[in-house]
Amino acid sequence: MAPENTPPALSEEEIIRLIATLAGEGGGDLAVGIGDDAAVLGGPAKGLVVTTDLLVEGSHFDLGFMGPAAVGWRAMAANLSDLAGMGAQPAWGFLSLGLKAGPSPRFVEELAGAMVDLGQEHGLVLAGGDTVRSPQLIINLCLMGRMGGAAPLLRSGGRPGDAVCVTGGLGGSAAGLAWLQAGRDPDQQGPARAVAAFTRPQPRLAAGRALAQSGRVHAMMDLSDGLASDLARLTRASGLGAKVEAGLMPLHAGALAVAAELGGDALAWALNGGEDFELLFTCDPGEVGLLAELVAEAAGGLAVTQVGRLGPGPGVALVQDGRERDITMGGWDHFREDST
Amino acid sequence: MAPENTPPALSEEEIIRLIATLAGEGGGDLAVGIGDDAAVLGGPAKGLVVTTDLLVEGSHFDLGFMGPAAVGWRAMAANLSDLAGMGAQPAWGFLSLGLKAGPSPRFVEELAGAMVDLGQEHGLVLAGGDTVRSPQLIINLCLMGRMGGAAPLLRSGGRPGDAVCVTGGLGGSAAGLAWLQAGRDPDQQGPARAVAAFTRPQPRLAAGRALAQSGRVHAMMDLSDGLASDLARLTRASGLGAKVEAGLMPLHAGALAVAAELGGDALAWALNGGEDFELLFTCDPGEVGLLAELVAEAAGGLAVTQVGRLGPGPGVALVQDGRERDITMGGWDHFREDST
Repeated sequence: MAPENTPPALSEEEIIRLIATLAGEGGGDLAVGIGDDAAVLGGPAKGLVVTTDLLVEGSHFDLGFMGPAAVGWRAMAANLSDLAGMGAQPAWGFLSLGLKAGPSPRFVEELAGAMVDLGQEHGLVLAGGDTVRSPQLIINLCLMGRMGGAAPLLRSGGRPGDAVCVTGGLGGSAAGLAWLQAGRDPDQQGPARAVAAFTRPQPRLAAGRALAQSGRVHAMMDLSDGLASDLARLTRASGLGAKVEAGLMPLHAGALAVAAELGGDALAWALNGGEDFELLFTCDPGEVGLLAELVAEAAGGLAVTQVGRLGPGPGVALVQDGRERDITMGGWDHFREDST
Repeated sequence: MAPENTPPALSEEEIIRLIATLAGEGGGDLAVGIGDDAAVLGGPAKGLVVTTDLLVEGSHFDLGFMGPAAVGWRAMAANLSDLAGMGAQPAWGFLSLGLKAGPSPRFVEELAGAMVDLGQEHGLVLAGGDTVRSPQLIINLCLMGRMGGAAPLLRSGGRPGDAVCVTGGLGGSAAGLAWLQAGRDPDQQGPARAVAAFTRPQPRLAAGRALAQSGRVHAMMDLSDGLASDLARLTRASGLGAKVEAGLMPLHAGALAVAAELGGDALAWALNGGEDFELLFTCDPGEVGLLAELVAEAAGGLAVTQVGRLGPGPGVALVQDGRERDITMGGWDHFREDST
């Protein structure tokens, strides 16, 4: 029994809190430290935001269900989405790659090529990295972005009574994965939209910048773990709670198509599926219409939907068929449960 | 047979070149991209340097030979050493951690605590990161530093006839590992110095800054893979070659002690062992004395030794007992050979 496996075990949130405590307050040249989508630097690096994400084969992706290009694309999308969640403009990226022995040129080209392509689409330059040998594929991206004068949008800015809004449709990515795992035809009309949401998610950078530049958004983050978990993080950071309505949830068209074919639950995918990489934000209820217009204009018609309100809390409640139930965090944790 | 294992396989250097080609030239806001110890940012982030390193249990460290504190310390030291190799002052760090299921508080505290401690010693603030579940321990650090007005020292600045110099003693880290692998007493006088060089290496940040601020160093990098590999990289980046003399090599006192006990070769550890995290730099031969004084003053008496000269090249030759042999790269590659 290795020492690191001895109980009591820590949850993911407890590990982050422990490291944040060890790291201390940070000092004058760090405006926002551990705990938001990205860190906000200060001093001579004012206006720079930095985010990092580690993806491990087996935990985060399975090369049996997708090729190296999809893996690379999704890794870059997840990190760009963290910059979108602050309202930042991508600038520089650093890629650490753990590869099995004897990688083929084609594998590396497809993997790194997809990352570079998606990054360049959003103005990101791959500026450095590290390449090592590893028992499984490992991808770490560390991305830096610029705020361009706007204030970074944090999770902690929510106010009581705020409208809770999301961009786009939810649940598509999880539905796409379920479709692939069921071994069904990835090109079948309807479900193909969910497959695309899973293999080629589109981070909402233009929408994020428009929302940051509007000066009217109180709190924002990207949706990477599902609304139940991510809204719980936003409400906790804001010292509030939230109530969302099942009937208002903008379910992804691909998720509805997959649910109809496989008998799955599109609402569950939207709440707990994760990796939709849409934006979650709060604002005065009277501003939703204006912000929806700004987002549609900046991001090619992307929809904004109000799904609920912030309240005294704590926790996140779902209202469905006149009944309320607690959906805080969706019970999901990498470390405590075998939920991979 | 997985697709990524199909021949022809790429070497580590070929992978880096392939990714650099895919990434392209970078554009106006990147002064130095893929290929040096760290990237040098431009535009509004002028004067910032960024480096990243990925460490994977089994490939880079073995928890059987060292505890989590030594693993954390060495990971931070390796990254800080890359900043030292540019002459930068550490500022912000981002830690991605892959942990097995059910990590204990003590394991995480020792691992992250050692990283935070060494970072703080050098002015680094841990500003963010990511924590995920993984089959083995994975550590990725992405560190940012500031040049504070000095020009970053690159690998490519070497000039024909330059003196090739190193700080400190070489081979201690590899000797310490050999001592631990042999199951010998880590506290035995003599070898204990090699064990300390392995478990608690000291990155040469003060020396690196003094050298950068002197304006008299032509090329610099840190010694992470051994002189044979790292000098080959410096000479290639400078379009030159080098000749070093075995008799001039500053062998680490702990390496000599371990070699005497185990019958190992201290010179081989110095040339090919790696992870000494000393500095390698080149300058006019007439400046070595002055630079040695600057380093000694800035870094508590740290020694500078001239070990050879840059010449037309290519490649790195070792002169020993009047004979010359090619030691370029020491034949070492993570991907092509089972050299872990």
